[in-house]
Parts: sequence; structure tokens; C-alpha cells
Amino acid sequence: MKIQPVRGTRDFYPDDMAFRNWLFERWRRASRRAGFVEVDGPVLEPLDLYTEKSGEEIVDQLYWLEDKGGRRLALRPEFTPTLARMFTARQAALPEPVRWFNISRCFRYERAQKGRLREFFQWNADVLGVADEIADAECIALAVDSLAETGLRPDDVEVRLSDRRLLGALVRHLGIADALVPQVFAVLDKRGKVPPEALEEMLTQAGLAPAQRDGLARILTWQGLADIEGHERATPEVACAIEGLERLLGYLEAYGVSEWCRFDIGIVRGLAYYTGPVWEVHDRKGEFRAVFGGGRYDRLLEDLGGKPMAACGFGCGDAVLGLLLQERGLKPAPDPAAEYFVASAGKANLLDVLAAVRHLRQRGLAAAFDPKGGSLKRQMKKAADAGARFVVIAGDAFAETRQVTLRDMGTGDQHDVALDDLGA
Amino acid sequence: MKIQPVRGTRDFYPDDMAFRNWLFERWRRASRRAGFVEVDGPVLEPLDLYTEKSGEEIVDQLYWLEDKGGRRLALRPEFTPTLARMFTARQAALPEPVRWFNISRCFRYERAQKGRLREFFQWNADVLGVADEIADAECIALAVDSLAETGLRPDDVEVRLSDRRLLGALVRHLGIADALVPQVFAVLDKRGKVPPEALEEMLTQAGLAPAQRDGLARILTWQGLADIEGHERATPEVACAIEGLERLLGYLEAYGVSEWCRFDIGIVRGLAYYTGPVWEVHDRKGEFRAVFGGGRYDRLLEDLGGKPMAACGFGCGDAVLGLLLQERGLKPAPDPAAEYFVASAGKANLLDVLAAVRHLRQRGLAAAFDPKGGSLKRQMKKAADAGARFVVIAGDAFAETRQVTLRDMGTGDQHDVALDDLGA
Repeated sequence: MKIQPVRGTRDFYPDDMAFRNWLFERWRRASRRAGFVEVDGPVLEPLDLYTEKSGEEIVDQLYWLEDKGGRRLALRPEFTPTLARMFTARQAALPEPVRWFNISRCFRYERAQKGRLREFFQWNADVLGVADEIADAECIALAVDSLAETGLRPDDVEVRLSDRRLLGALVRHLGIADALVPQVFAVLDKRGKVPPEALEEMLTQAGLAPAQRDGLARILTWQGLADIEGHERATPEVACAIEGLERLLGYLEAYGVSEWCRFDIGIVRGLAYYTGPVWEVHDRKGEFRAVFGGGRYDRLLEDLGGKPMAACGFGCGDAVLGLLLQERGLKPAPDPAAEYFVASAGKANLLDVLAAVRHLRQRGLAAAFDPKGGSLKRQMKKAADAGARFVVIAGDAFAETRQVTLRDMGTGDQHDVALDDLGA
Repeated sequence: MKIQPVRGTRDFYPDDMAFRNWLFERWRRASRRAGFVEVDGPVLEPLDLYTEKSGEEIVDQLYWLEDKGGRRLALRPEFTPTLARMFTARQAALPEPVRWFNISRCFRYERAQKGRLREFFQWNADVLGVADEIADAECIALAVDSLAETGLRPDDVEVRLSDRRLLGALVRHLGIADALVPQVFAVLDKRGKVPPEALEEMLTQAGLAPAQRDGLARILTWQGLADIEGHERATPEVACAIEGLERLLGYLEAYGVSEWCRFDIGIVRGLAYYTGPVWEVHDRKGEFRAVFGGGRYDRLLEDLGGKPMAACGFGCGDAVLGLLLQERGLKPAPDPAAEYFVASAGKANLLDVLAAVRHLRQRGLAAAFDPKGGSLKRQMKKAADAGARFVVIAGDAFAETRQVTLRDMGTGDQHDVALDDLGA
């Protein structure tokens, strides 16, 4: 038997795992610094949790099974529905606002390709219970903080942000019917992913008149809020959306993250449930699709059975970000298995090695050894293979004096020391 | 809609999640101190990976599904087959011995009950490539170190250890046929879980003669290796097994963990694949079933398609251990969401709060605030709810002087300080 792993899944050998831990640690550190607390739910959720909101057509994109009682169970494709379920179950007892974060393994049954896996990890952070844009700013500031933690800089990545209320108001101002707006958003989200002609064709198909398509094209050329014209500003809905965006930009300034952020009217996000500010992190060189993104979803909790609840957040996968960090040379070198390696020489035996290992570990130091022992030369090679920083050699005198030779593997320096002085 | 979670799964609200992180951190710390490196594999594995070794009957105890290509995929019930698959795929390039650990979410479709869940976490540590009992000792010492890390003491728990080679040799010395030994082991593993009469009945069913059952009963009364009789010691197979166990006990002495360990001839472990030393951690009061256990499995890698490879290790679930720690009062109090909470008073506004928050976070301190602001009294209540240790109050003078009032929530003391001196 030679069994192959499932397509779209990953094996995490030590170096891959070290990177995963390094990344998760940075996500956790940034989240905690911002006062977010960690939660998690099951991988197995009732399939209804996803079909209830997205319809039966989502079933095809999920891994799911029927249990012995005929219940349909899904492997979670994202964390937000679980978050909504958990929040709703304890809503009365939870002090608002809730700032939760989560790092979850998620599953999507879609075509596996570069940066898009069937089994992946996603970091989520959400603020529940705050209608003001301060919560959106808090999420964006956290996202930026995490990017900075990984070593990325404002010239590597940028947050492109907009507000669905603004684009919605402008689209309606073009005379496009309310009922068409979600469809127009869905087409606009394909911008940059399909050729411009295909986009044009989709808008025509959606029923937009030539003047409306031209109006939309003009809107999409805007570089800033100043480009919005007077007749548009005069619309109460547009004016209100501009005010909201200006508040958001003001908060981002106060957080000190403005140089990472840029208004981009064309950002709409694919998911249907967003209701306000939306944003995406992109690499400035444009080598990758969106690294991650988020937005406001003020109606989702109610739709999923909870009380009406203002909410915003984001989800950041590990795959595209991992590729970007690799590309920019920011993936860290893996740590050695253990800083110390204990070897024996001369009359010293395995029990002497264990005595030294025990001492070091009791002092909280990571200590390895080679269980097969053998010549000192062989053991030194094992220590080098393991990436040890120091080798502790127990020799002839060890049993009586507990003296050892400490060798610095970086410099090659070595000197005799009392074992009990190590890690003291 | 009000969707219930799947039976046998858990929601991890902040307190549960804090405990999970606390436990995982201790597992990781102990593993790394002992020179083990972390790895992981997918949750989704080919179902064959489990049926190949355990037969089709295991399918009933697993969660599995058929993908669009008709391939059967399982949610991993344990990590060892994945470990074997990963090791085998890179065997030539991996420096031996391999010391790997893993913390994985696993799934078993069995009756959910106290301490037994359908979705749980398991910590695995394994040493591959070492035939000597030093590797078994290394695993047991690591298990003990992890228990000590959680606050458990030798009077709370003990490691009961034996060697299947010894019991196997003694059973064969009773004249029980080789082919019956696995069945006898399976019955013995039920000791303490079913009434003695049921056990007796099962042994009779297995075909044991009365004298053989009496002989087995006598062996199971032994308290130590010294109880083994002369005619048994004279059997080469028994003599060899005793030597191995004595080496193991000698190593455990050298690791300084003897007081945690006790020889128990009746420990066999349920899994069929063990070939040598086997051990289980039990609470001394006997309130719980085995907390966890492990052993040597020198033939498993070959059976799973690899080269012959000496191997041993253990798997430790989070559920029973969690109950034990709870019972012994060792579950830690959860940390506050953020150590600092920034409030505004007088003329200070939300932007001032953000300026202070930004300063603290840049210094690496965790800082929260209430986005809705409101009266100082209201904000102080929010700070207390969040468990903050310090409240930083930005008042009238803040915008000009960056002076704040620092209040210690534990003592109630407060005094004025320059914001820039905090976290310096």
C-alpha cells in the first residue's frame, strides 16, 4: 500500500508546521493586543447552517455526509455561521460589544489551485454590537497590525476600502432598479478576474442600459471621494454614505494606519451578506488575488435566527498570505528542534546523558540527544543535523564531578563548565 | 431558524478556549523541551488509510463521505496512520531518529458520553527509528513532564506500565496457543471495565482451559517483576522480556520519573498494533478511565506500506484530562480580554481614546475600549466586565498634554501619568 494524501489538502512537515505556528502566533498576538478573545466551534456543523442562508446550491461546494440518523453534516466552509450560532445561543449573557477572534480549519470542495485549497486555515475577527464605523476601523487596524507583525510594509500591501452603501446609492442614482443592485455587485466583484468585455457583456445581460453602463464605468474611474459630483452628493443616500466613509477614514487616521489604506470605489466583495464598509488587502504589485478581506454584515445574525445585531469582521486565509510572504522573503527560518544536544564521550554512558538531559529540561531548556549514542564524532553530526546551538559533552569525569564541555556550534568555541551552572 | 450544534461536538466560548490554549501550550512546551518537533496532516484522509490495517469494520466508527469522483474520504480518527503515511513518503530524507509531535482534531463516530466525544483533540508524540527502550522511556518521561506542567502530582496520577512481550511469553508458557494471544489481550484490556465473571466467561469462550484461566488469574495478582517465578524466569522469552523491562525502569529512574510509574502486568492496551512496552496514565483515585496511554508499535509502519521501522509513542486526548484537571481544581482562571482599558472623560473624545489605544498597542500591550463611549461610569463598568487590570482615563487635558489617569482595578489606586511613560 502507498496511500496518497487527498487532493487540495496539505501535509505539514516540520518546516511547514513551524511557519504555520509562526503565522498563527502573529495572528493571536495582534488579536489579543486589540482586546479580541479567542473562540472556536466544531468542524462538523449541521448542513442547514449553510443552506438556510445560501440555499441548496451551496451544497455542491461543501464536503458533507449523512449520519446514521439521516442528518446532513457539513465540514465548515467558513467560521461566520458558527459565530452567529454561538453568539445567538448566549446573546443574553454576553457583554456587548463582543470582540471575538478564531483560527479555524475550514473546508471547501472547489477546484484546487495555487493559493486555493480544499482544506485551509482561516483567521477570523469580528465585532458584534457596534453600528458605528469605529468597529470597522478596529477590524482594519487589527488586519494592518497583523500584516506589520509578519514583516510586510505599506509598500508591499494595501487595504482597498469602500462602502456598499455608497456604491449602492450611486448605482440607484443611475436609475438602476433596487432589485438589480445585488447582481451588479456580483458582476463588479469579477473586475480584474475576467476580461473587460466579459464584464460589459454581463452588465448588458443583467439588463443595464448603455447610459447606465457608461455611468458605472465613469464611477469606477474615481480615485477618491472628491471625484463624486455635485448632483450625486446632493442625493441624501449618497451624502449619508460619504459621511460614513469619512468617519471611517478619520478613525483609520487616528489608528495611524492611513498609509496602508486607500479608497477604492470598485471594492464590493463577493459575499452577498455585506451591508456597509467592505475592504480587501491586495499586494501592491498585483501578483496575487486579494490576500484577504472583510466588511460589515448588519443583517446576517438576524437572518441566521438571532436578534438584529450590528456586526463586522474579516476572514484571512493562510494560503495566499503564505505565498506572498514567501515571495517577499519574509518566511522565517525554522527553529532548531532543540537548543541543546547532549553527547557522551569516553567512559560516560547513556545514563550520564540522561542525567544531563534531565537537568537541562528541568531548567526549562530544550535538550535532545541521540538514543543510539556511538562515537562522539557521530553524535556531533547528529547535533549538527538537528540544528542544535550548543552541545553539552559528558566525558570521563562527568559521573564524579558533573563537569561537562559546552560547545558553541556557531563559533566552535568550547570550554568546561559545571552542568549545574547551565540554565541557572 | 435555531440550529443546534452536532451531538458530541463542542463550542469553545472564551473560557473553554482559554483552557484549550492553556493545555495545548503545556503540551507544546513539554514536547519542545524534549526535542520533539511539531508536524500535522490533513483532517481529510483517504478512507483506505484506516481500512487497510483495521479492515472494513472500522468504517462504522468513522465519519466518512464519498466525493464527486467516488473516492471515499474519512475524517481522521487518530493521527498515527497519517504519521506513518507522512514518514514513509519522506523516509529516505529524514534524519533518524525522528521525534515528532502533533496536536490534532480527530473524529470518531461512537456513542457520545462523559469524556468521550465525537470531535476531540489529541496530542501525539512518537519516536521513530529506535529499537531500544530508551525511546519508550523518552515518551513516558515526556508524558510525565506534561502532567507536571498542568499541576498534577505523583499522588494524583500514575503511569502503569508493562510489556506485551512479557505477558505474551507468560501466556504462551501457560500453554495457550500463539494464535489465541491477541484474543486474550483483547479480553484482558476489558479488566476493570466489565465484571470479573464476564471476563472469566470471555476467556472460557476464547477456549482457555480451567488451569490456563487460573494461571492467568495468578499472573494478574503480581505486584512486581519479583513475583515472576523461577520456572517462568528460566524461559528465554520471559527472561528477555524481563531484561527489557528492567532497562526501561532503569531509564525512567535516570529521567527522575520513577515515583510517577508503577509496573502493572495487567496493562495491555486495546489497539492490536502494540508489540512491546505499553503504558497508561490513570488517576490514583480511579474516578476516570485511563487518561491516556501509549506503547511500542514496531510493525505498524511496515504494515502501512513503509520500510520496517522501530517506533513508539502515545496519544493523549483533551477530554478526560480536562475532566480530571477540573476535578482536581487545576483548571486555570481565564485571562482578561485585555490588560488595559482606555476610557474618556470630560472633553476627551473617541479620537483621544484611539490615540491612547494606539500608543499602548504599539508598546505591545493589550488595550481595549468601549466603542460606544458614554459616561465615565458606564465605561468603568465595561472595563470591569472585561476584567481589565488597569484603566487609562483620557480627560480634559489629554489632547494638549497627553497626561492620563491610570487606575489599578485591583487596588483602586489611581494617579496621573504621561501616556508616553506607559509601556516604555
